[in-house]
Amino acid sequence: MMQALLDKLKFDSNGLVPIIIQDAHNGEVLVMAYTNREALEKTIATGKVHTYSRSRGRVALKGESSGHFQHVKQVRTDCDRDAVLIKVDQVGGACHEGYRSCFFRQFENGAADWKIVEGKVFDPDAVYKK
Amino acid sequence: MMQALLDKLKFDSNGLVPIIIQDAHNGEVLVMAYTNREALEKTIATGKVHTYSRSRGRVALKGESSGHFQHVKQVRTDCDRDAVLIKVDQVGGACHEGYRSCFFRQFENGAADWKIVEGKVFDPDAVYKK
Repeated sequence: MMQALLDKLKFDSNGLVPIIIQDAHNGEVLVMAYTNREALEKTIATGKVHTYSRSRGRVALKGESSGHFQHVKQVRTDCDRDAVLIKVDQVGGACHEGYRSCFFRQFENGAADWKIVEGKVFDPDAVYKK
Repeated sequence: MMQALLDKLKFDSNGLVPIIIQDAHNGEVLVMAYTNREALEKTIATGKVHTYSRSRGRVALKGESSGHFQHVKQVRTDCDRDAVLIKVDQVGGACHEGYRSCFFRQFENGAADWKIVEGKVFDPDAVYKK
């Protein structure tokens, strides 16, 4: 029955749809990524977010290196069925740079660069062992 | 100075970046869309969200037909600088189908289709006059 629902989504010409990962508790947007059919099947079957990593060219379990898994609470799609929103319980931080959310940089007119407005919740050097 | 910050973003080969529009008050994800440099300049300059409509092939002011403008409260980018998050005051509903959020369909295993789990906040036939 999962297949029938995935058939209703509009994957792009590369077989991808963008996904937004959101904290189920406080609504914080954690990550914007891409998924494909296989990653979405694994996400739903395991209850842990999997994405399609365009840089690595494969399906990746979020948290596989860090242990910072994203436990799925709810999966939604939009009116056009070409984007997916997943609400999760986030373990640790979602961002590989050590922040809870990847969206830690804010536009401030007059600044020389986007301003970092969040603090790190983990040390990436300790978590991603070299 | 706005230009210096836009220079830091990584637009794709079509000059686009995905944007997530989020309700500044309750955190609800309203829309996933695309923007280009021109749309982002207009968004920041006017304080109203503009997107790049891939179907219409042009920059579009959100709410131009409906009056359902999105007033910009905060603009963020992510660690890779290839996605933008805009927190807004939403007038009316963000979705052209009459819903407050485009993400009104939810995955429910065993259902024949994604289930509509939100109610409409406006009548699209009345708002988008034929």
